[in-house]
Amino acid sequence: MLLETIKQANDIKEIRREDYGQLAQEIRDFLIRKISVTGGHLGSNLGTVELTMALHLALNLPEDKIVWDVGHQSYTHKILTGRGEGFDHLRQFHGLSGFPKRKESDCDVFDTGHSSTSVSAGLGLVKARDLKGESSTIVSVIGDGSMTGGMAYEALNNAARLETNFIIILNDNNMSISENVGGFSKYLNNIRTATGYLDLKEGIYNYLRGTRWGGSTIKGIRRAKSSFKQLVIPGMFFEDMGITYLGPVDGHNIEGMVRVINEAKRVEGPVLIHVLTQKGKGYEPAERHPARFHGAEPFDIETGIPSHPRTVANYTDIFSTVMCKLGARDEKVVAITAAMPDGTGLKRFRNMYPDRFFDVGIAEEHAVTFAAGLAAGGLKPIVAVYSSFLQRAYDQILHDVCLQNLPVVFAIDRAGLVGSDGETHQGIFDFTYLSGIPNMHICAPKNKWELSDMLKFAVNLSAPIAIRYPRGTAYDGLKEYRAPIELGKAEWIYRERDIALFAVGSMVKTAETVRQALKEKGYHVSLINGRFVKPIDEDAVRDACRDHVLIVTLEENVSAGGYGEKVLDFMNRSDLHNAFLSIAIPDAYVEHGNVELLKQEIGIDADSITDKICQKLAGSRKD
Amino acid sequence: MLLETIKQANDIKEIRREDYGQLAQEIRDFLIRKISVTGGHLGSNLGTVELTMALHLALNLPEDKIVWDVGHQSYTHKILTGRGEGFDHLRQFHGLSGFPKRKESDCDVFDTGHSSTSVSAGLGLVKARDLKGESSTIVSVIGDGSMTGGMAYEALNNAARLETNFIIILNDNNMSISENVGGFSKYLNNIRTATGYLDLKEGIYNYLRGTRWGGSTIKGIRRAKSSFKQLVIPGMFFEDMGITYLGPVDGHNIEGMVRVINEAKRVEGPVLIHVLTQKGKGYEPAERHPARFHGAEPFDIETGIPSHPRTVANYTDIFSTVMCKLGARDEKVVAITAAMPDGTGLKRFRNMYPDRFFDVGIAEEHAVTFAAGLAAGGLKPIVAVYSSFLQRAYDQILHDVCLQNLPVVFAIDRAGLVGSDGETHQGIFDFTYLSGIPNMHICAPKNKWELSDMLKFAVNLSAPIAIRYPRGTAYDGLKEYRAPIELGKAEWIYRERDIALFAVGSMVKTAETVRQALKEKGYHVSLINGRFVKPIDEDAVRDACRDHVLIVTLEENVSAGGYGEKVLDFMNRSDLHNAFLSIAIPDAYVEHGNVELLKQEIGIDADSITDKICQKLAGSRKD
Repeated sequence: MLLETIKQANDIKEIRREDYGQLAQEIRDFLIRKISVTGGHLGSNLGTVELTMALHLALNLPEDKIVWDVGHQSYTHKILTGRGEGFDHLRQFHGLSGFPKRKESDCDVFDTGHSSTSVSAGLGLVKARDLKGESSTIVSVIGDGSMTGGMAYEALNNAARLETNFIIILNDNNMSISENVGGFSKYLNNIRTATGYLDLKEGIYNYLRGTRWGGSTIKGIRRAKSSFKQLVIPGMFFEDMGITYLGPVDGHNIEGMVRVINEAKRVEGPVLIHVLTQKGKGYEPAERHPARFHGAEPFDIETGIPSHPRTVANYTDIFSTVMCKLGARDEKVVAITAAMPDGTGLKRFRNMYPDRFFDVGIAEEHAVTFAAGLAAGGLKPIVAVYSSFLQRAYDQILHDVCLQNLPVVFAIDRAGLVGSDGETHQGIFDFTYLSGIPNMHICAPKNKWELSDMLKFAVNLSAPIAIRYPRGTAYDGLKEYRAPIELGKAEWIYRERDIALFAVGSMVKTAETVRQALKEKGYHVSLINGRFVKPIDEDAVRDACRDHVLIVTLEENVSAGGYGEKVLDFMNRSDLHNAFLSIAIPDAYVEHGNVELLKQEIGIDADSITDKICQKLAGSRKD
Repeated sequence: MLLETIKQANDIKEIRREDYGQLAQEIRDFLIRKISVTGGHLGSNLGTVELTMALHLALNLPEDKIVWDVGHQSYTHKILTGRGEGFDHLRQFHGLSGFPKRKESDCDVFDTGHSSTSVSAGLGLVKARDLKGESSTIVSVIGDGSMTGGMAYEALNNAARLETNFIIILNDNNMSISENVGGFSKYLNNIRTATGYLDLKEGIYNYLRGTRWGGSTIKGIRRAKSSFKQLVIPGMFFEDMGITYLGPVDGHNIEGMVRVINEAKRVEGPVLIHVLTQKGKGYEPAERHPARFHGAEPFDIETGIPSHPRTVANYTDIFSTVMCKLGARDEKVVAITAAMPDGTGLKRFRNMYPDRFFDVGIAEEHAVTFAAGLAAGGLKPIVAVYSSFLQRAYDQILHDVCLQNLPVVFAIDRAGLVGSDGETHQGIFDFTYLSGIPNMHICAPKNKWELSDMLKFAVNLSAPIAIRYPRGTAYDGLKEYRAPIELGKAEWIYRERDIALFAVGSMVKTAETVRQALKEKGYHVSLINGRFVKPIDEDAVRDACRDHVLIVTLEENVSAGGYGEKVLDFMNRSDLHNAFLSIAIPDAYVEHGNVELLKQEIGIDADSITDKICQKLAGSRKD
């Protein structure tokens, strides 16, 4: 096994050229074997095995630096920097992260997780290098999907301007998570499909390099007027901005890539290397089902079928079903996703109403303002998006949707703790950032029926509204509690006295367990499904304050600016001085791992909450 | 006066062609006369007089629709839609807004204020039109400065994909607020300076149009392979994406533009018209000093000199001076602005340390992640930005800076109420959106010396920190209170008993007035300069709770998620049950107008606050 000889960065340089293929195969087998057990990002990693090897061969880590866009394709990089053993605990609590982490290795220079940041971050490292008088090579690796994100373009624009050495590798697999979309994708496709282009270009370069005047001729071509250059160089989009374009090159040919990377190191100024790769390369099920193997659950290697097929519906399934119904009922309903037709569950809506479905690519800012335009035009847009990605569109929600009080519905999936993706993907800030925005309404369903009810309510609200629901299995308890949704109204589930639990969203289920535990200790406990985080149900709080000693709020969001602070603020304004306890996520990033473990770690599992309530009651009595 | 005949939309169509020039001149004179009195955006409006006239001539408003990017260039549009009389109260409380407002006119179809949104919003209106089976013409007008914002590119990418009729006008004046920067600007410049290109192209088109086969030839050229097309059509950047490019055309030639707009209406699919204009056109001082006349204070028409020259320093001046000192002291200090070297006060730093200054264009997302990269590379970046524009980079602060705990300093100008720019520009959300983010620190200076002290403290903190300060004159009172800045520590200004005023930033000055008023009523009042909003000074609050009946927080930020909620939350957690009152901005957008008037309107002026405190005391006694 060649892989066993790789203990740390640069060990790959000891491998003989003729063995590159074997090492690539071993890495691929390793990835498939490990991820089939733990789950993880398979397709993107299989696609970049050779590219990563070529980078490690051509660069000298950690002096030279690689910034991985999104970072879910960094598994081979982790293996080549001596972290292979960590893969048994990949994405598990206290185990290896599925993304680059500076705390894991000095070969990880910038943490990523969201899309389209790598060129900006790389450019910052580049200018820091320049100002410190150093001369390392800095490479940002960005996929064509990430290139649909506006900030990548902002960064290219500045890379061009700063005119210093910087290598950008465009890893073009013609995909984001699903198929890639838009004008830029069309453009790349033109380059890719230029018949025989690759061979021709390789031939010309090899020929020129072989001649005495080759170098200056290549330079001459680059300096020539655009109209001529266009005949020779396909990447005019970049060249026009002032970025040298090299490519396209075969992303599964290691030696070819090493040659081009070394060529790029000699170019003055920013260079973009256009690398063509295949997502899922070398594992047939992943090649055929790129969306499914993007973030894969554990699977059977032979068949590619999930080892533990899902038998119960998750919230995304419910959303998916309801959207189709809403689409049938109301022609004004339109749906928008930022590159997530599968992940958000909008695929069925797309298939049924293709004209009313818009996948804008990884472009949350545009998605939201586009939705605002659709709403201003009289339609009822629903933006389906993950909580942590909606952070990208904070200003657009505030400035384009809510300022004009436009009826855009935000269906926020993956809200709360998401588990194995970790820090960058936890959806634990949305109550905070959304509820500061005037005109916004925010609610969260306690179970799957309520998600359906809330969606139906939301499309007819005629004002901005966000519905947030968690990753994973949809709660199917409390079915009998289905009071009609009213704006800003909570739902009393159990009405007793002494302790009132105001829980929102996923925490209603937790609160049921807490309530049982407290009852076993002899307390009387009411449970209120808060439903709305903005506006909160002031009547329900006032009501509860009459015959409850302690008011407790429970939310899967950070404490600052969350539901609890709103309830406490109302109580204070209304001179309601009952004891109050807020259960929320503490002020710290939450790492990756099993959600139940994470909840214990941060003290929002039923046991911890029960303890906190008992302590609070003890403290209050002492007063 | 032709202008007097313009009472409503489409009246311009009654003007004879030969009088277009005269009308343009009258509009220009009107704008200069009015803005010289009220202040306002002069340069951008002088540049778009003819373009706006051409749009109104070629379109049929309000059926056809124009989305103005940023919107500060919509003054001529306001005049041509019958709002000329409003200019006497431009940007004043309850007066005409300086931006498009749907509530002002049915010819304003989408409110704007921030940059780079118009193509997204326009595309939304376009698809709403299509789905409703209508056939109006929809035009987005976007400047080349706004084109450096990533979301404009995201939107172009999708406009190309959706392949429906949509006209984008690129108003290219080679400027954002100051000079434009970056690769894209370089690209446009190449087009602009192609010798004789304009005449040649106009000639070819006129010739082809005159022939029987002209139409099909033009189509043929467009269909041709890129390499040939490049010889004829300069806008390959757009054509490659799938957007038909027309131009460049002279943006001060009305009839020429009407012709091209009509041509664009006949093209199938998205069209971009590249219009060349001159910012400040026709008023020599504005042509020469584009940055100064971007957002102009009242000025003398003859000389262009401000009517009421500023004699006292504002916070921006202080920031500017301190930055130069910090730059001299520490080579690691670098500064970043998103197209605001003048507005943020970084111009002097740029002149002194050009290598350590970065203007990234209107690209706040990139600015922040670029800063994160610089910090990861060992430097001390300071991002100078307006509060409302930093909203654009919320995710980058959370995901790229704070998650890695990188030492980026955010110097947040225009925080709090900004006055005449109104709703879109009020910087009243930053405490909320920033303080939910782990690892972030937030402070606000009470006066000009404290801004200096906080900046010096911040560059050595080794963690993310935001310093927010308001627009306008820097407070120079309380000079004698200058306790060293300590992380999370407040400063006691007056220590008495009964009432404790915890004020942050600009509200310290207000709190002084409130304190005087309360003392005159016989109360004892302490004043604490809160300094830090995150972390708050828990010791100071605990201390105050010992001998004060009422704790009051004062902040120029929305209540939700602000300073007050944090203090109240701490008091609750610590079983401190003193009476508590939070003075903050209510949950609503705040319109344009004089800041003092606005504060009265929303109840955060000294008189209103004094009344609220007295009411609270009366209420507390009643209990």
